[in-house]
Amino acid sequence: MTEDDVVAKIAELCRPATLPRAARFVGIGDDAAVWQPSRSHRSVISTDMLLEDVDFTRASMSLEDAGWKAMASNVSDLAAMGARPVLATVALGVPAPMDAGEILELYGGIAACARSYKLAIAGGDLSRAGAIAIAITVVGEVRPSGIKVRNGALPGDVLAVTGYLGAARAGLAVSGNATAISPDLAEEALAAFRHPMARVAEGRFLGASRNVHAMIDLSDGLSTDADRLARASGCGVTIESVPVARSARALARARREDPERFALAGGEDFELLAAIHPRAYDHVAARFSARFGRPLLRVGVLRAGSGIAWQGVELERSGWDHFDRRA
Amino acid sequence: MTEDDVVAKIAELCRPATLPRAARFVGIGDDAAVWQPSRSHRSVISTDMLLEDVDFTRASMSLEDAGWKAMASNVSDLAAMGARPVLATVALGVPAPMDAGEILELYGGIAACARSYKLAIAGGDLSRAGAIAIAITVVGEVRPSGIKVRNGALPGDVLAVTGYLGAARAGLAVSGNATAISPDLAEEALAAFRHPMARVAEGRFLGASRNVHAMIDLSDGLSTDADRLARASGCGVTIESVPVARSARALARARREDPERFALAGGEDFELLAAIHPRAYDHVAARFSARFGRPLLRVGVLRAGSGIAWQGVELERSGWDHFDRRA
Repeated sequence: MTEDDVVAKIAELCRPATLPRAARFVGIGDDAAVWQPSRSHRSVISTDMLLEDVDFTRASMSLEDAGWKAMASNVSDLAAMGARPVLATVALGVPAPMDAGEILELYGGIAACARSYKLAIAGGDLSRAGAIAIAITVVGEVRPSGIKVRNGALPGDVLAVTGYLGAARAGLAVSGNATAISPDLAEEALAAFRHPMARVAEGRFLGASRNVHAMIDLSDGLSTDADRLARASGCGVTIESVPVARSARALARARREDPERFALAGGEDFELLAAIHPRAYDHVAARFSARFGRPLLRVGVLRAGSGIAWQGVELERSGWDHFDRRA
Repeated sequence: MTEDDVVAKIAELCRPATLPRAARFVGIGDDAAVWQPSRSHRSVISTDMLLEDVDFTRASMSLEDAGWKAMASNVSDLAAMGARPVLATVALGVPAPMDAGEILELYGGIAACARSYKLAIAGGDLSRAGAIAIAITVVGEVRPSGIKVRNGALPGDVLAVTGYLGAARAGLAVSGNATAISPDLAEEALAAFRHPMARVAEGRFLGASRNVHAMIDLSDGLSTDADRLARASGCGVTIESVPVARSARALARARREDPERFALAGGEDFELLAAIHPRAYDHVAARFSARFGRPLLRVGVLRAGSGIAWQGVELERSGWDHFDRRA
């Protein structure tokens, strides 16, 4: 099977995802894909690479899960800007032992995630590699008034997240060895780890409010990402409470660790962290839960100064930092 | 040095490239970059991944060269559409033994190429990997009337290339071992292999002519890419002559190989291959050489039917196919 043959099969796999917007494209399968951006919106772009044995192992998840996760983590970056995804490109490196069936399984997860967020896969690249490498770039659109960046937070703003934290970290632990948590909690943890959801609707909802001053997605853990948002805004942050996912709480307790500290350092939650005007916070939170049927969760406040404080002490950055954890 | 520190240094390195268009951006260094696409143009996107030990080895070129080449090969895909590059994202995987200096050397090549084509590096991702992985996505713009795809060629069209072929393949050979060609030819070959140029101005020039019916860039060799263009257009192709680069001719002769066959299978030339209306060909070629000071080189004709013929025989695809060459 030649590269062109595999690419033809991949194009077939992507067809359902590209159909809804196909009319806007020309040149799929060409050197590049062409589209007509919306005139009333700005374009947004983000890229992210997932590597076998660095970001995932084949023992910890299926190829389909790895594909889903690679796409979801990219979509999450657009969600954090208040944007909706429009299209993606996928560059894939696959080791020689992988056959066409396995390549298509991996691609199946990528395409399923793309479909679920209604974005088209507009092009890609496929080559042999020593280990699996999935590099995805997502392009989205956002109204100029809805763009949210990291550096708009002000001292006094309330920090809130769109969901409970730590489940993906618990899933990583559960996938590695038998841990004494109940099967339904283990399932919650594994789903969060292997099949994360990007908060696109939540990002657009929060992005549309001018009382939301800044936003970031939690890819490296609340402590790291809250610090990033605060630094970018020239503020410090005080964490008041950590909303811990049930599975993370159970796992931390089974390991005799502090559940809040466990969740603070839990990477890959892909919830959104937003800095919200303090006087508008209650109103935004009420509208959020009316819209999504679950609460917006208050985690702390921005303050003048710098650093990230929790329970009266300064936190080290403890999230997932690719360089720190390998250094 | 943390990931954020290295990213800060990379951002510094990219500043000259981003300055000319900086006003159009917000959110660099954020989760995603935001820009305002031109309203009179279509947007174009292409992605490509370069992998250590698959697409290049550290013995065959410097880190700076590898970075340049990764960017140039992406820009070349846009050139083949008649588009001009606007911005790129760069996802980089680097092995643990590489220090910050080496990462910045690699990035230096990427940034130098971006500067040379006046495109901004709008964002990226940096992580540890088993081997170097460089995944670049380039976004460009093209007037709707100037878009060129692969499938527009007609039987009778003249096929022409924007430059002499085979030098990059000669450079790969020269980089691997001492070969009996003169130092100046070896230098020509190595430059083509390590520091290729994307034919952006040529692509826009050819794209603007409605007598140019289809275009593709020569990344996998004339025989493979001419066949791709012909297949996409439902045609066959007859190769009449192969314009062989001086260094490729010398190297092939030193190895007692046929120079034209050597150049036909020479990947990574990154010249453009265009299918041009036969009655307009002389006019287009004359304008091309007046504009660029070098000739447009006729290589063959499209014909009804299928396949690629050269000197009366049907050619096997012999270019660089990632799957074939590893299968």
